[in-house]
Amino acid sequence: MTDIDLTTLSTTKSIQLSHGGGGQEMNKLIKGLFFKSFDNDILRNEEDAAVLTLEGNTAFTTDSFTVSPLFFAGGNIGKLAIAGTVNDLAMMGAKPQYLSCSVIIEEGFDVANLKTIVDSMANELSISGAKIVCGDTKVVPKGCADGLFINTTGVGTITKSGISVRNLKQGDAIIVSRDIGRHGAAILMAREGLTLESELISDCNTLWPAVEALIAADLDIHAMRDATRGGLSAVLNEWAQASDIGINVVEDDVPVSEEVRGLCELYGFEPFDLANEGTFIIALPQEQAEKALEVLSAFAACGDAAIIGEVSDDYAGRVILTSGWGSRRYLDLPQGELLPRIC
Amino acid sequence: MTDIDLTTLSTTKSIQLSHGGGGQEMNKLIKGLFFKSFDNDILRNEEDAAVLTLEGNTAFTTDSFTVSPLFFAGGNIGKLAIAGTVNDLAMMGAKPQYLSCSVIIEEGFDVANLKTIVDSMANELSISGAKIVCGDTKVVPKGCADGLFINTTGVGTITKSGISVRNLKQGDAIIVSRDIGRHGAAILMAREGLTLESELISDCNTLWPAVEALIAADLDIHAMRDATRGGLSAVLNEWAQASDIGINVVEDDVPVSEEVRGLCELYGFEPFDLANEGTFIIALPQEQAEKALEVLSAFAACGDAAIIGEVSDDYAGRVILTSGWGSRRYLDLPQGELLPRIC
Repeated sequence: MTDIDLTTLSTTKSIQLSHGGGGQEMNKLIKGLFFKSFDNDILRNEEDAAVLTLEGNTAFTTDSFTVSPLFFAGGNIGKLAIAGTVNDLAMMGAKPQYLSCSVIIEEGFDVANLKTIVDSMANELSISGAKIVCGDTKVVPKGCADGLFINTTGVGTITKSGISVRNLKQGDAIIVSRDIGRHGAAILMAREGLTLESELISDCNTLWPAVEALIAADLDIHAMRDATRGGLSAVLNEWAQASDIGINVVEDDVPVSEEVRGLCELYGFEPFDLANEGTFIIALPQEQAEKALEVLSAFAACGDAAIIGEVSDDYAGRVILTSGWGSRRYLDLPQGELLPRIC
Repeated sequence: MTDIDLTTLSTTKSIQLSHGGGGQEMNKLIKGLFFKSFDNDILRNEEDAAVLTLEGNTAFTTDSFTVSPLFFAGGNIGKLAIAGTVNDLAMMGAKPQYLSCSVIIEEGFDVANLKTIVDSMANELSISGAKIVCGDTKVVPKGCADGLFINTTGVGTITKSGISVRNLKQGDAIIVSRDIGRHGAAILMAREGLTLESELISDCNTLWPAVEALIAADLDIHAMRDATRGGLSAVLNEWAQASDIGINVVEDDVPVSEEVRGLCELYGFEPFDLANEGTFIIALPQEQAEKALEVLSAFAACGDAAIIGEVSDDYAGRVILTSGWGSRRYLDLPQGELLPRIC
């Protein structure tokens, strides 16, 4: 890295169009902020593309983050942008290795806030050990974006193969890694300016350490997915359809915090449809379910892990929810205007 | 792929928030539009991440596209989003193989325009043979984005190693693949509503076929880069600094069309600073320069390829421009407000 004069950047309070123009100002922003926080050998090469050595099967995934507001209880768009993409890799049994980071910044965006967000990204990366190795910075005029959008795209070597949306089998147990709906509820709360007496924070979290432990325990994981947009309902319905099996869920076994339940009653949401950003669902043989719960219990973020249902041969392609009173109904893929911009 | 009812999508004239909500409407948009145009085996798997088999050294690059207007003479944001990322891979000597596609759509965006843009992407992909294997769709409320932003991130196997911003050597010839400044000028024209008598269109183009031919001709390419934001000036200055060499450019040898020259005079721009999206610069040993020009001459988009200068041991880290009258000046990295949102 050439020697850069950071004084100009540090005295700039807000992002200008010239920070995205491809000239000197952009160079200063990139080197003074992004390179400093994400520093690593590959990034420092400054080639048109990063050069990686990848072996075996590689998982490849992308997500653009447009969450509003940018800061919420339990995280911000930066933490989310790392956890989200790292988790998509982890869900394929892949070790998160290399990420790209592409930002679209609205003219006038506060540089101090950008620094806080970038620092959160660097901090979240340290949990999985993944590195940001290439990036892109665009600035659009005031009114042409809502503050900041971040795209992260990631690659990682698959360490456990066979995990697939198509691989659920009769008799599999369905496990959820913690209580559901926290992220959606935290965003709703931030957006509505609500303050609850109890502390409701997003589940936003990097899941790789827990997944790595499950893989190390040699469990025969059939399917695994983080329940982001569309929540638990979306994951279970996609699985039921892709694997052409039925899934029975026992409503009372699904962990939901009192705070999330309260917000859902207030706003008419179903906890099953609310987004999560650090909660995942596992399908694996019934006889390995207790072992999986034991592995998960070592992780603070998986403290409420529970078996919530099983794969059945009834109603192939559908998810059946049995209530505490014994009544049964379809748990459908959410539709209509769900809570927008939760990620 | 499960059987999808496309009637709902085809009767929807504009994008709604629910198209990004993670529920049924989003599924319809993704399967009815993106999957149809980008169809391939990996995409159809619908896992949390695409599974790729990559060998040797892999190039990895990202770009977010925010060009305004979305349609311009010679292309649109979709064509640009593919050509841009494919070209960044090609510039590292990498065969473009797999791309991700992540879109941020403003509520109310016209579905017919989105389809035109997605079709352009599919068409541009066919030139290099690269495939879109994963994606993400976000919809933000009206006024929170300017129509459509696209991120593409790509990977590809490096077929020719050693190409680097740090690898320029004394005596290297500097070649430009065609006349410069067309993309910036075309965007300027579209934005100002100008119509010229002669046809000025963007150079927006996939460069892999030309690069593949250069590699096949076994040329010892030292450095190669497409002159996007910041134009020719930015590339040459980055090279001069990274390789710690001087670069002499002969102004009259740099091809510039009459239309671009005219627009530059009208608006006070330098053609050297204007963006290109299908124009690249090569540094290679002087004695291979004519061979390189011969290879490039087979490609319509490289018809004006020319030797424009050479690497020297004077003024290390700087670019010197010699005018037709023999006067010499520094060609500096552009600064200040260049033409914004050209890509």
